[in-house]
Amino acid sequence: MTFYIIGSGNMAWFLVTRLTGAGHVCKGVYSRNHDTGSQLADAFGLKQLSSPEEIQDDADCCIMAIADGAIDEVVKRLSLSNTVLLHTAGAASINLLSSATQHYGVLWLIYSIVKNNLPEHRQIPCAYEYSDTRAKEVIQQLANSITDITYEADGTSRKWLHLCAVLSNNFTNHMMAITDELCRREGIPFDMLRPILSQTFERTTTTPPRALQTGPARRNDEKTMTSHMKMLDDHPEWQRIYQAVNESIKAMYKSGNQ
Amino acid sequence: MTFYIIGSGNMAWFLVTRLTGAGHVCKGVYSRNHDTGSQLADAFGLKQLSSPEEIQDDADCCIMAIADGAIDEVVKRLSLSNTVLLHTAGAASINLLSSATQHYGVLWLIYSIVKNNLPEHRQIPCAYEYSDTRAKEVIQQLANSITDITYEADGTSRKWLHLCAVLSNNFTNHMMAITDELCRREGIPFDMLRPILSQTFERTTTTPPRALQTGPARRNDEKTMTSHMKMLDDHPEWQRIYQAVNESIKAMYKSGNQ
Repeated sequence: MTFYIIGSGNMAWFLVTRLTGAGHVCKGVYSRNHDTGSQLADAFGLKQLSSPEEIQDDADCCIMAIADGAIDEVVKRLSLSNTVLLHTAGAASINLLSSATQHYGVLWLIYSIVKNNLPEHRQIPCAYEYSDTRAKEVIQQLANSITDITYEADGTSRKWLHLCAVLSNNFTNHMMAITDELCRREGIPFDMLRPILSQTFERTTTTPPRALQTGPARRNDEKTMTSHMKMLDDHPEWQRIYQAVNESIKAMYKSGNQ
Repeated sequence: MTFYIIGSGNMAWFLVTRLTGAGHVCKGVYSRNHDTGSQLADAFGLKQLSSPEEIQDDADCCIMAIADGAIDEVVKRLSLSNTVLLHTAGAASINLLSSATQHYGVLWLIYSIVKNNLPEHRQIPCAYEYSDTRAKEVIQQLANSITDITYEADGTSRKWLHLCAVLSNNFTNHMMAITDELCRREGIPFDMLRPILSQTFERTTTTPPRALQTGPARRNDEKTMTSHMKMLDDHPEWQRIYQAVNESIKAMYKSGNQ
C-alpha cells in the first residue's frame, strides 16, 4: 500500500519504520515541526511536504500521528476522496475525520512508543474502528503489518479502553514515581520492591487483581493508615491519593460487596 | 537452629516450610486459631501448643507470624531469656517485643505469600532489624536460609519501605482491580492492556518512573480528563482517585519541578 504520514513524533517514526519495513510505500511526510519532519524524511529518504494541502488524493491512506488537540485543525486542511484518512489517538473520536473524506478510521496502538528505542516485537495491541468497508480493509492490512494483536472496538469501547489504560498504566507508573522519590529521599533501595511488584503483575495473569488485594485498607488497619498519612504530611497531594485509594479499596471490599 | 512458631497463616506456613527445609528444627507451633494451627502441626509433624505460655526458653528463637494488632497481646504472655523473639510485620515497631526478652528483632519479607502457592525461589527481599548481636546473628542465619536478598533497615527505614510497598504494590493492584472491573462491565478484554503494563514495569528497571510518565495529566489534556471524570460518574470513589492522581501528576511536573 501507499501512505502519507502526518506528524514526526514517536508514533510517526514507529509507523514509518514498521510500514516501510513491511513493504508499504510512504509518499510523503508533513509535520508542523519542520525540524523533526526533516529528520524523519531524511532518515527514510521521504519527500517532505510543507503543508497538509500538498497531500494528494493518490495514496491508499493518510495517517495522522499527531496530538489529539491538533487533529481537528489538520483535518480542515485536507480534502480527500479515495484516500482512507486515519488518526492514531486513543481518546479522540472517529467523527473528527468525517469532514475530510468518506473513508476514515482509527488505528490506536495501546503501547508506549519511544523513537530511540522502538519495539521490535509484534505484541502491540491495536484497537481499530472504521467508517466503511474500504477503511476497514486498509486499516486491517496496516494493523496486520504491525502487530499480531488486533481488536475491533467502537468509539465507546475505545473510550473505556483509553480510560482503563490511563488508570492501569499511567496511574500505576505515578505510584512508582512517588515511591521512587520517597526511596531516594530516605536512602532506601527501590530494588527491594521490585520482586513484589513483578509478582503483582504476574499474578494478575491467572487471578483477578480484585482477589489479590492486600494492604492496610484491605484489612481495615486504621493505625497503619493514620501513621502513613502522617508520614506524607509534607506532600498533601500524595496524602489525597493515599486517602482516596484507601476509601476506594474499603468500598470495593465492604461486606456484601466481596 | 531450633525455633518456635506463633501463627498458622500464610507467612507461618512459608517460614516453617523454608526453615525446616533448610534443616532447622521447629519445637512447636502455637496459633490462636486452633484448626489452622492443627493443620500446620499435622502437615509438618510438629507439636501443637495450646497457649503462648507453653513456649519454653529452650530454642534459638521464637518467631511471631501473626497480625500486627495481635503482637502486643501475645508478647505479654511470653517470658524468654535466651531465646531471640522475632516478629515478621512490616509496619510494627521492634519495641513491641522488648518487654518479653532482651534479644529481639524483626524479619520482614517484602513479598506476598500464599499458603497454597508458596514461592520456591530465593529472590524474596528481607528487611531486618535487631536489638543486639545475639538477635542479629540469629536473624541473619534465618534470613540466609530463606533468601538471597537481605537488607538491614532501622525502624524508620522499614516504616518508609512499608509505605512504599503499599503505594507501589497495593495501590497499583487496586488500579488494576478497578480497570479489570471496568473492562468486565464494558465487555473489553483486559488482555489488551497487559503488554503496556508489563512494558511499564520492565522500563522502570532501566529508567526512573518519573521520566516515563505519560497520560492526559502529564500533557495537561483537560478535555480528556473531563471526559474521563464524567465516565466515572457512577463511582464517586474512583472519581476521587482520578482527580487526586491527576493533581499529583500535575504537581510533580509543573514547570520548575521537572
